[in-house]
Amino acid sequence: MPEINGARLIADLRRLAEFGKYKTGVHRPTYTADDMAARKWLMDRMTEAGLEPLIDGVGTVLGRSKSRGPRLLLGSHVETQPYSGWLDGAMGVLYGLELARAFAEDKATANLGIEVGAWADEEGHYLSLLGSRSFCGEVTEEQIDATRSAQTGKPLREALAEAGLAGKSRERLDPKRYVGYLEAHVEQGDTLDSGGLKLGVVTGIVGIQTYNLTFHGQQNHAGTTRMAVRKDAGVALIKFGNMIEERFPKVVGPRSVWTTGKITLDPGAPSVIPGKAEMLFQFRDVEPERLVLLERTLEQMIAEANAGGPCRVELKVVGRTAPHAMDKGFQDALEAAAEHHAPKLHTRLPSAAGHDAQTFARHIPAGMLFVPSVAGISHHYAEDTREEDIVLGCQAFADAAATILKKAA
Amino acid sequence: MPEINGARLIADLRRLAEFGKYKTGVHRPTYTADDMAARKWLMDRMTEAGLEPLIDGVGTVLGRSKSRGPRLLLGSHVETQPYSGWLDGAMGVLYGLELARAFAEDKATANLGIEVGAWADEEGHYLSLLGSRSFCGEVTEEQIDATRSAQTGKPLREALAEAGLAGKSRERLDPKRYVGYLEAHVEQGDTLDSGGLKLGVVTGIVGIQTYNLTFHGQQNHAGTTRMAVRKDAGVALIKFGNMIEERFPKVVGPRSVWTTGKITLDPGAPSVIPGKAEMLFQFRDVEPERLVLLERTLEQMIAEANAGGPCRVELKVVGRTAPHAMDKGFQDALEAAAEHHAPKLHTRLPSAAGHDAQTFARHIPAGMLFVPSVAGISHHYAEDTREEDIVLGCQAFADAAATILKKAA
Repeated sequence: MPEINGARLIADLRRLAEFGKYKTGVHRPTYTADDMAARKWLMDRMTEAGLEPLIDGVGTVLGRSKSRGPRLLLGSHVETQPYSGWLDGAMGVLYGLELARAFAEDKATANLGIEVGAWADEEGHYLSLLGSRSFCGEVTEEQIDATRSAQTGKPLREALAEAGLAGKSRERLDPKRYVGYLEAHVEQGDTLDSGGLKLGVVTGIVGIQTYNLTFHGQQNHAGTTRMAVRKDAGVALIKFGNMIEERFPKVVGPRSVWTTGKITLDPGAPSVIPGKAEMLFQFRDVEPERLVLLERTLEQMIAEANAGGPCRVELKVVGRTAPHAMDKGFQDALEAAAEHHAPKLHTRLPSAAGHDAQTFARHIPAGMLFVPSVAGISHHYAEDTREEDIVLGCQAFADAAATILKKAA
Repeated sequence: MPEINGARLIADLRRLAEFGKYKTGVHRPTYTADDMAARKWLMDRMTEAGLEPLIDGVGTVLGRSKSRGPRLLLGSHVETQPYSGWLDGAMGVLYGLELARAFAEDKATANLGIEVGAWADEEGHYLSLLGSRSFCGEVTEEQIDATRSAQTGKPLREALAEAGLAGKSRERLDPKRYVGYLEAHVEQGDTLDSGGLKLGVVTGIVGIQTYNLTFHGQQNHAGTTRMAVRKDAGVALIKFGNMIEERFPKVVGPRSVWTTGKITLDPGAPSVIPGKAEMLFQFRDVEPERLVLLERTLEQMIAEANAGGPCRVELKVVGRTAPHAMDKGFQDALEAAAEHHAPKLHTRLPSAAGHDAQTFARHIPAGMLFVPSVAGISHHYAEDTREEDIVLGCQAFADAAATILKKAA
């Protein structure tokens, strides 16, 4: 099996974290100067590793292999959430880079093709999973024309032009070129860390269903309107929210999660009974049947609330992403490598966050490996993973990749 | 008893409603061109009625009486809430005008002094109850300097200058000049209308206590953070809001009201567990003891929530206005007049909205009379009162004023 160089990997990770450094983390939104400098730096490292790097029309950096043997595509993303962690995305990309070097350095694996992608804007500063979806042929030019930053309103086209990417072609996946896609990532939850585990083999990536609930009441004077005759949309929302907390625990699966991320009362004044109230509600699960059950539960609660009155409730689907199962063979290969390097200190678990691997899973076999996040902290500059866990994860990842490629050779 | 002229009163009310007419209501915020034109029109009507009108440094229009007998001060306000009703405020001012005319036309009451005030900005486009509070000596020049429109940010000084009021002196109440203050107003609730009643004798104006509740949780990823380890500030807020709806009905009085006017989840994104949540909560009651009990209940719930965790709750008082009792003698006079003109079709009730009368109640005896609001609709252009109820109310108001003045003569 190829042996990875842990010191080299950690040094690269520390160097990459300098681009947009913020406290103990990184602030490197897509297409900013720091982000583009990081992409340039990555391309130079790819060249050193014997890969042929390119940057495409949406900013995805791809390191092609010169090998003619079976090829495995590895990757993740290099941009970060605002004021976020140093490993989220970056680690998966640099695992790929390290594997490309380690495989080339080992005669037994030098013929195997390791290609590495840093898929642009997985974090969705403009469009979630833009790079992997563009690469897989899921994004049209019209979509790119119509996309703006949710934060600043800047058109994606403008950001691409400012980053020097205007007019560049977009790379496209040739499914026949690859045995599959593998991605490593920090867990972002605390299952591994709280369980004292070292590695997690991802069974699938959860489906996410997001809804907007609107409660229609009657706006009125908060002093003169007696309680008995009010149609307070805010109270209706609070009671519904409370009902969710009572009912959902009875129908969810062991790893389901549900969240009310936003609440708005209209008009939102101290002395006015809200005439309208809205909540943004989301749940996630890896089992399709569970998602159906949860949606049915929500719809039933809405029917009950409407039957009970006095406010009318309206449910709108904001978004639904299907759960994506990871390839069984890849899971087995990752688990065998995990058992070899961290006996009994690994588990299979779903990913509750979205990843580029879910895009690839629609086109080629895909697999994911998790390493522990200290205290499960994610999307925060305090995000961290112990260096020995990062190195251990990379070695297990290399073993699994070698097993998969050798099987295909 | 002096006889009011119902047709003249209604004609004046309809004319005043032309200034800033909006659908079936009026849009006449303080110091706008429409508002200033209405004030000018009112001063002309005061002159015709034999009063000596003036407009002071905050825009209050005051019609002084030439009478040397006992004087009663009547009034309300002429500006409106945005896109609001035609009677809120305006009716009380024109009742005063009509009484001045009716008293002067009746030899038996011609010696009695009726003075009329249209107190500027009761509705608080700049500062709630500005005119009556300025008149009663409760507003400093520094406060005026520091005040801006909550809506537009425009400094009050600038609005006053644009309205041609810069440099004008502010009138001040001489408490010895008046027997007391009387105000008539539409109820703004539905107690009279739903009960088939014609008149309401106000017992007092409710105290309003407003609080900001902040729930401190831990912001985290809405996918990867297991339910068991979350500190979701939004869920804590929803559970607390639900507890309010369960507990408050057990401790409130028959006419207490409570309202959550605003809720904010921070950061307010679909995929982020809220780390902070805030709610603006208010209750009102006319009994001081009840307000104390409600605050104690709220504090106890906060203590329980803090003991239960996982989020910390913090309570901040945003504002407290004390309840103001109306003068008992004035209540009796108003009730006797109500019984005379609408036998058994009247009730005593608190005012759940703030009024200029609460300012005067701190300085001279004050009383208020309500007429029915159709369906209790208030602060909306659909606000209305039947013309016969407006006329009946004015006649009862005139009788009560005459009784009070004659008693003092």
